[in-house]
Amino acid sequence: MNEEIYALINNNPINIVKLHHLIAGMNTVDIADIFEHLNKEKTIQLFRLLPKSIAADVFSYIIPEKQQVIVEALTNSEVGRIMNELFVDDAVDFIEEMPANVVKRVLQNVDEEKRKIINQFLRYPEDSAGSIMTTEYVDLREYSTVREAFDYIRSTGVNKETIYTCYVIRRDRLLVGAISAKTMMLANQQSRIGDIMDTNLVFAYTTDDQEKIADLFKKYGLLALPVVDTEQRLVGIVTIDDIVQVIEEENTEDFEKMAALNPSDEPYLKTSILKLAGNRILWLLVLMLSATITGSIITSFEESLAVLPALVAFIPMLMDTGGNAGAQASTLIIRGMALGEIQIKDALKILWRELRIGILCGFVLGIVNFVRVYLMYDKNIQLSFTITSSLFLTVIIAKSVGCTLPMIAKRLKIDPAIMASPLITTIVDAASLLVYFSIARAVLKI
Amino acid sequence: MNEEIYALINNNPINIVKLHHLIAGMNTVDIADIFEHLNKEKTIQLFRLLPKSIAADVFSYIIPEKQQVIVEALTNSEVGRIMNELFVDDAVDFIEEMPANVVKRVLQNVDEEKRKIINQFLRYPEDSAGSIMTTEYVDLREYSTVREAFDYIRSTGVNKETIYTCYVIRRDRLLVGAISAKTMMLANQQSRIGDIMDTNLVFAYTTDDQEKIADLFKKYGLLALPVVDTEQRLVGIVTIDDIVQVIEEENTEDFEKMAALNPSDEPYLKTSILKLAGNRILWLLVLMLSATITGSIITSFEESLAVLPALVAFIPMLMDTGGNAGAQASTLIIRGMALGEIQIKDALKILWRELRIGILCGFVLGIVNFVRVYLMYDKNIQLSFTITSSLFLTVIIAKSVGCTLPMIAKRLKIDPAIMASPLITTIVDAASLLVYFSIARAVLKI
Repeated sequence: MNEEIYALINNNPINIVKLHHLIAGMNTVDIADIFEHLNKEKTIQLFRLLPKSIAADVFSYIIPEKQQVIVEALTNSEVGRIMNELFVDDAVDFIEEMPANVVKRVLQNVDEEKRKIINQFLRYPEDSAGSIMTTEYVDLREYSTVREAFDYIRSTGVNKETIYTCYVIRRDRLLVGAISAKTMMLANQQSRIGDIMDTNLVFAYTTDDQEKIADLFKKYGLLALPVVDTEQRLVGIVTIDDIVQVIEEENTEDFEKMAALNPSDEPYLKTSILKLAGNRILWLLVLMLSATITGSIITSFEESLAVLPALVAFIPMLMDTGGNAGAQASTLIIRGMALGEIQIKDALKILWRELRIGILCGFVLGIVNFVRVYLMYDKNIQLSFTITSSLFLTVIIAKSVGCTLPMIAKRLKIDPAIMASPLITTIVDAASLLVYFSIARAVLKI
Repeated sequence: MNEEIYALINNNPINIVKLHHLIAGMNTVDIADIFEHLNKEKTIQLFRLLPKSIAADVFSYIIPEKQQVIVEALTNSEVGRIMNELFVDDAVDFIEEMPANVVKRVLQNVDEEKRKIINQFLRYPEDSAGSIMTTEYVDLREYSTVREAFDYIRSTGVNKETIYTCYVIRRDRLLVGAISAKTMMLANQQSRIGDIMDTNLVFAYTTDDQEKIADLFKKYGLLALPVVDTEQRLVGIVTIDDIVQVIEEENTEDFEKMAALNPSDEPYLKTSILKLAGNRILWLLVLMLSATITGSIITSFEESLAVLPALVAFIPMLMDTGGNAGAQASTLIIRGMALGEIQIKDALKILWRELRIGILCGFVLGIVNFVRVYLMYDKNIQLSFTITSSLFLTVIIAKSVGCTLPMIAKRLKIDPAIMASPLITTIVDAASLLVYFSIARAVLKI
């Protein structure tokens, strides 16, 4: 399908009838995808050829750099029409990605009322309910009948982002209830909205973090959520399609933090090399310098190592196994807390679980390791015992540190995700080397 | 609120009027939460006291171990009523968690028609569209008018999971279109469904993986998706609330694989210690044994280490920095591929980016490291140069390996997530030690 379209667009002049015919059979998301691979000239040409009825919808799905190309080429009145047709949340998303000169031109050409709303949205803190909500919702009154409500929806609903949940407000936009289109369709047409509306409302405040909003959607299986100001006045709604994006964003942030990266909203391929390197360097520096501690532990045991150089060969194995064992524990705890399955009050229970898991894993690894060292190092039973007991203790320490640090972070209201493998590895390294050399000195008498 | 309820339930006899009054003001999800902290006797007592109209809905949100307690205590006819009222997907979820004897009893007491559907669902492969879909959708005919469609929805819609997207079928249930309740509400009541329905359908097959389904929801911003069999006959729909769960499951699976864990569906606190240890031990063993390679590299350079024991002190720093640098690259690539932002065809572009990022990061880390070693080790410029140049090359190798392995996995149709930090650390460890000792021999002439 797409190849046919590309062939068509690259012809000159373009066969508009055929293009419209092809486009009529496509989803607007797929139409927007076409723009990604067009040059500047073709981007503008194709956008101008889109049927007016779908232009704004397609525009909202086009990638920002192409949106900018398009807006810079359009006339002021064309820009105004597109902006007026966009949902407020899509318009705000678009404006947030644009450079200042484009923003100025866009805001100059939008309706005054919409401009006010957009300006207000741009002031909400990033990642707050206010920044992801939309104002296109249906508001009803308690004294209306279902029939009146439907007439109202028919006359205004075409521009609303969802009509499937309607919100019931009193004077001053005070939120008092919600009613689903389903309830209204199944109800008697003469019923009063106030009598059949749902008053057990789940709602959020404009300043609530988007992560909290996503948790509400997940917990209650919502399609939309009303957002109120500090005086319980309805100011917007958040819809599920935006929440799916929020969930993926929050997960990406956790993945990045857990790999010692500075989180970033931009896709990898669209981020400059300098920015990518910048997001990585700080943690690498911190962790590199903290490895000085491990270095000085080794230095302080240099004499023992001189007596038995074979000891050095096991350092990577001990460090890596400790690091991996710790990462396993921390990942499960961090993820469990993110999903709300693990609470701080479970801390002691978790530590006790991880201790037992550490003993089990350490025991199995220890046996395999004992056999290997015993066979590979001339059946040296003292050496085998030293390595194996160090490994056993390392795994237990790693599991304990791995589960404890994320919970401490949570308690201190720091994001547990930064307490992930890299930091834990550094701590476990130091602990395992101390254990290792102490046991070696005692057992091997060096 | 919950404390008031707990106090009420622990009274004997329970004040039923007051209980019903309290429950009437609560969301069914919150009511289900109460059961988590009740003992067996109180669980059964409270469930029996729930208003009949919400019992099945509450039941679908109760945790599996309490669901079992309840089902075991109910009479056959009570079990039958609950099962008949559950949506098919909720009933299947419940049955999949129950032991064989409970499943048998449940299936014996459900309507024959529903039993057939449930049995069919239980045969779909795990994590397929078939296993997460539901059969409670509204199906319309092309020749119906909008008014007739609404009458049909009013008479049957109360038992449907969603009425906001209706599906249009021909003879033999062949799927030909979809129409939203919004379109119908805004249309003329005499219009024919066939004339105003949407024929640009996004749909899935019963055998499609749930990850693919989630991608379709994200891409097209869907609320529901029709599922067809191999002959394009409509057999069910998937709704957005289940997709939100799928997205979180898939993310959890990636987190677990990336931390060298065997992925598991069960929440951490509900999994036995033995199972948790089992999920961790395999990868720990593999990675521990593969560290034998690093050990033998060190052994083969034992003589050099004997000449200059200080070299050992830098091994942890080199290994950890390499591991962290590799994990940063692999995490971004794995995540980018999971979100569809990175394709295999970008492989060379990505390798070239990571090489440059590696040079940048390696350069900054190298300078800091040079100064530190130079000052701490008696201004030994050869030693400083050896460590710094090894570090520089290690970072570049780590970034290259870190970005390449996940892409190779993807190419081989293996899940890229298992090519994460632990495996990359092992490879980078070996490479960095080889580089380190080779440079040390050449520069320090040992």
